[in-house]
Amino acid sequence: MKGERVQLAHGSGGKLSHDLVSKVMLPAFANEALAELHDGAKVNIRGTRLAFTTDSYVVKPLFFAGGDIGKLAVCGTVNDLAMTGAVPLYLSAGFILEEGFPLDDLSLIVASMKAAAAEAGVLVVTGDTKVVEKGAADGIFINTAGIGAVIEGTDISPARVRPGQDIILSGAIGDHAVAVMAGRYDLVLPQTVASDCAPLAGMVRQMLAAVPSVAMLRDPTRGGLATTLNEIAVQAGVGIRVEEAAIPIHPEVAAVCNILGFDPLYLANEGKCLIIVETKHTQQVLTCIQSHPYGKEARVIGKTTASPAGQVGLHTAVGGVRLLDMLVGDQLPRIC
Amino acid sequence: MKGERVQLAHGSGGKLSHDLVSKVMLPAFANEALAELHDGAKVNIRGTRLAFTTDSYVVKPLFFAGGDIGKLAVCGTVNDLAMTGAVPLYLSAGFILEEGFPLDDLSLIVASMKAAAAEAGVLVVTGDTKVVEKGAADGIFINTAGIGAVIEGTDISPARVRPGQDIILSGAIGDHAVAVMAGRYDLVLPQTVASDCAPLAGMVRQMLAAVPSVAMLRDPTRGGLATTLNEIAVQAGVGIRVEEAAIPIHPEVAAVCNILGFDPLYLANEGKCLIIVETKHTQQVLTCIQSHPYGKEARVIGKTTASPAGQVGLHTAVGGVRLLDMLVGDQLPRIC
Repeated sequence: MKGERVQLAHGSGGKLSHDLVSKVMLPAFANEALAELHDGAKVNIRGTRLAFTTDSYVVKPLFFAGGDIGKLAVCGTVNDLAMTGAVPLYLSAGFILEEGFPLDDLSLIVASMKAAAAEAGVLVVTGDTKVVEKGAADGIFINTAGIGAVIEGTDISPARVRPGQDIILSGAIGDHAVAVMAGRYDLVLPQTVASDCAPLAGMVRQMLAAVPSVAMLRDPTRGGLATTLNEIAVQAGVGIRVEEAAIPIHPEVAAVCNILGFDPLYLANEGKCLIIVETKHTQQVLTCIQSHPYGKEARVIGKTTASPAGQVGLHTAVGGVRLLDMLVGDQLPRIC
Repeated sequence: MKGERVQLAHGSGGKLSHDLVSKVMLPAFANEALAELHDGAKVNIRGTRLAFTTDSYVVKPLFFAGGDIGKLAVCGTVNDLAMTGAVPLYLSAGFILEEGFPLDDLSLIVASMKAAAAEAGVLVVTGDTKVVEKGAADGIFINTAGIGAVIEGTDISPARVRPGQDIILSGAIGDHAVAVMAGRYDLVLPQTVASDCAPLAGMVRQMLAAVPSVAMLRDPTRGGLATTLNEIAVQAGVGIRVEEAAIPIHPEVAAVCNILGFDPLYLANEGKCLIIVETKHTQQVLTCIQSHPYGKEARVIGKTTASPAGQVGLHTAVGGVRLLDMLVGDQLPRIC
């Protein structure tokens, strides 16, 4: 990496992000909890199993259909905790503000954080505000970190993913990215196109109470469904086969992707999760999450396989199989 | 605040920072842990007492005598945890990178975080990297959040500050701010002027083992010693009297302040702490921390008094008493 510079795609969640993490961050901070590379780390303090996670939010524009940077900053971190099988409890909030940023906008964003935190059942207990000169940031960046208590009797981990398990997706993909893009470029889209940004902790908790043996959870955010499936395949050492026709996608979102040339499999979602479970529990998981407002459109989209380990194959609607790679480059920077 | 805009001084740690927190953040996120307004929040998860804190780092320049943004990002958060009477255990690291930022610099910063984390005995267990376009940030911003385990038998809180206790300062003030300023404006200063940036957790732990009854700890970072003393006076409802002549300050730093018109009482420190303790334990605290490399210059600088509650008086070297207010405005933005 000597002499190289940061590119936008280093923040895409795709291949370059993985390179950066594996070449710069992991060698420096080597430890067991980090090495899991899950959405959040699991740590043990005096016998209490905790989940701990962080994300910075730099979305552009700050306000978009279905949400804003504040809602995103709470939901994103809450969801990362939920994906470790934890009940989210406490958040921190770090604000970096650009000189001249309107305090009215800050108040709207904070109000939106408050509402999302209330829905998710978390408390913002500590925070920090820094201000940089005009031109040294882009309005506002927010970091949240979160602590959750791992639900007793659960063990969500790539190590528990085995061939022959079902892969469930909790709903339609691409809504968030298309809503943000529409906001950024002033596209006029039907009002039905809105970010799916939502706290999934309640739905996940309900599901884990019913089926504590769920093997793996992950939310397909940056890099989209395809990148997340690749991460799971590599970390779990299994193959993954998904059915294109089974992947839920709203027709308006599909239409926008067709026109603009985006592949929805690589678009970010902020209110969806992947659930990997033994087939004998699939129906129970589906029944449980379909009864929740955030899981109504849940479907089985594929299966884990013994081989080819570490690879994701997409059975296309026309009958072929396409190798689905991680995101390379970036379709849409600053999506969250 | 309607129609107002963010000013640099909203990030100073002084009066405007307090206004912003009390008018925008606190009403939204009202809860007991946040209301303590300590450097970190104390929370209880399944019977385990934890401390949780966050800070974003936007220091300019990124590298300065005695440290860099990476060392600062680890030490700052470790110290906030230590100030709650906790042993720091786990950190998160969130990077916001500007497109074009040299990866070699990122590697240096990460190496510096690694070294500081090793010294402080904490693990960086979770992280996030976002990239924004050239011009949308200033090189690199880092957020760290931290979790610590509150040391059994301690209860560090403004509520435990009473009139008649001693106020100890662990060493000389102003070094960090002057070192950063020298770096920013290319001032040529003696090599002895360097940031005091250091993880204080080891020293604090050693002291609390010897004197668990310490009432209050706080590190005088943004806003400097004067602002921190004001915060304590207001939160504890006591008066504070400090002796100007007792406050340690290195002659080079005093000279720079004299020439440039800075008041060292308002300059940020990154490796110093204030300790408030019953007078009968003062000598024990001093002996303990003076034996530690980061506390060699520790001294009693003043006392808490019954009145005037919420105010800080400085007994000046020439014999008068000056009311010491919080920082108003900002002497030096982006100091951490």
